[in-house]
Amino acid sequence: MAAAAPPPPPAPAPEPSIAFQESSRRDNPLFSRIRLATPADVPHIHKLIHQMAVFERLTDLCSATESSLSATLFNSAPFTSFTIFLLEVSPKPFPSSDRVIYLDHPLIDPQRETFISDNVNDVTVAGFVLFFPNYSTFLAKPGFYIEDLFVRECYRRKGFGRMLLSAVAKQAVKMGYGRVEWVVLDWNVNAIKFYEEMGAKVHDEWRICRLTGPALEKYGDDAI
Amino acid sequence: MAAAAPPPPPAPAPEPSIAFQESSRRDNPLFSRIRLATPADVPHIHKLIHQMAVFERLTDLCSATESSLSATLFNSAPFTSFTIFLLEVSPKPFPSSDRVIYLDHPLIDPQRETFISDNVNDVTVAGFVLFFPNYSTFLAKPGFYIEDLFVRECYRRKGFGRMLLSAVAKQAVKMGYGRVEWVVLDWNVNAIKFYEEMGAKVHDEWRICRLTGPALEKYGDDAI
Repeated sequence: MAAAAPPPPPAPAPEPSIAFQESSRRDNPLFSRIRLATPADVPHIHKLIHQMAVFERLTDLCSATESSLSATLFNSAPFTSFTIFLLEVSPKPFPSSDRVIYLDHPLIDPQRETFISDNVNDVTVAGFVLFFPNYSTFLAKPGFYIEDLFVRECYRRKGFGRMLLSAVAKQAVKMGYGRVEWVVLDWNVNAIKFYEEMGAKVHDEWRICRLTGPALEKYGDDAI
Repeated sequence: MAAAAPPPPPAPAPEPSIAFQESSRRDNPLFSRIRLATPADVPHIHKLIHQMAVFERLTDLCSATESSLSATLFNSAPFTSFTIFLLEVSPKPFPSSDRVIYLDHPLIDPQRETFISDNVNDVTVAGFVLFFPNYSTFLAKPGFYIEDLFVRECYRRKGFGRMLLSAVAKQAVKMGYGRVEWVVLDWNVNAIKFYEEMGAKVHDEWRICRLTGPALEKYGDDAI
C-alpha cells in the first residue's frame, strides 16, 4: 500500500474508445508510452513521490530522498522485486508502443521543464506505478502488489491511470501470476467505482495492520 | 494477505513471563524454535496451508499442491522474496535458539505423526509464517508483508503466534526495514486486540482491491 496512505485514485477514465483509440479528429495529439524505469529516472521518481505526498497531504510522512531511493530500488531484475513503470507523454510519436489521444485543446503542462526526460523528442514524465511480487499460498502463485499509482495533475482524466494499472495486470498475466492487488480509501467512491469497472473486487472485511517506527524498533531488542 | 482471507489470528497469548521465560515449575516442558524453511519442508508446508484453508472454511479456494509450492517458493535467497519461518516444537531441548514453556498437562498432538520433522529428536512442525518484502515510497525503504501466519490447533494459546510475528519483526529491524504489515478481518476483535498489544496500528479506512481469475486474465489480451 502507499506510504501511510493508499495510492491516489486515477480519476475516472473516459471511455476507452476516447482514451485509447484514434478518433476522426487529429488536433492536439498526445502520444504516450509506458516503460520500465531505470536508475537514471530517480530524480523524476523522487519528484513524483513528493507530488503524491502533497496530493495526499502527507508530506510530513514523506522522507524519501533521491539517495535513499537509489539505494533501495533497482537492486534486482525487473519484476522480481520492486519495479517501476514510468508513463511518458509527447506531442510527437514514440518509436514504438505508443498510444495517442487527441485533445480538444493544447495541453499546458506547467511543470514540463521539471519533468522533461528527452528534450530532443519533447518527452515528459507524466506518472508512474510502483509494484512488486506478492504471494498467495492458496494459489501457490505469485501476484503483483501495486504500492503506488500516480498521474500528474494536468494529465488526469485521460485514461492514464487505467493505462498504468492495465500494464501491471498485463505483465501479471504474461508471467502466469494469479492476482494484482492494491488498496483504496473507503470513502473514495469514484476510485472504487473505477477499480470495479476494471474488474477488481473490493474486499470490505479486511483491515491493514502496520507495525512501524518505535513500535517496530523494539523488536530489535534481543530480550523480546 | 492470506489467500482469499487474512491470516488466522494467533490466539491471544499468555503474558510473556509465562510464555517465554522459565517458571519455577518444570513439568511438561515444550521447547520451541523458529527456523527458515527449506524445499524439504514443502510437504509439511502444504499440509499446514491445507489446515489453514479448513480453518478459514475456504478449501474450495485452495489449489496449492506440493508441486506448485515447490515450483514457486525457494527460488531466491531468504528474505529477498517469499520466505517461510517454520515453528518447531519438541519435548527435548534444541541445540540452540530454543524457548521453553511448561504446561500444566502433557500436550497431546493428535497429528504428531503427520507433522514430525525429526523423529530421532522428537521434533514436530507446529506452525509457519510466510512473508516477503514490500516497499514504502514515502520511507524509500523495504518492509515485510506477512501473507500467512498459522499455528496448529493444539499449539494455540501458548504464545507461538506472537513468537512467529516477533521473529518477522525482529528480522525487519535487523535489515533496517521500515514496516511489517498484514491484514485482519474487521470482526475479529480478539485478533485486533492482540495485534494492537503487539504495537500494530489497524488502519480502518483502507480497502483491499483484488483483480484475479477471468477479470485478470482478460488483461492478457493484446487489444486491451
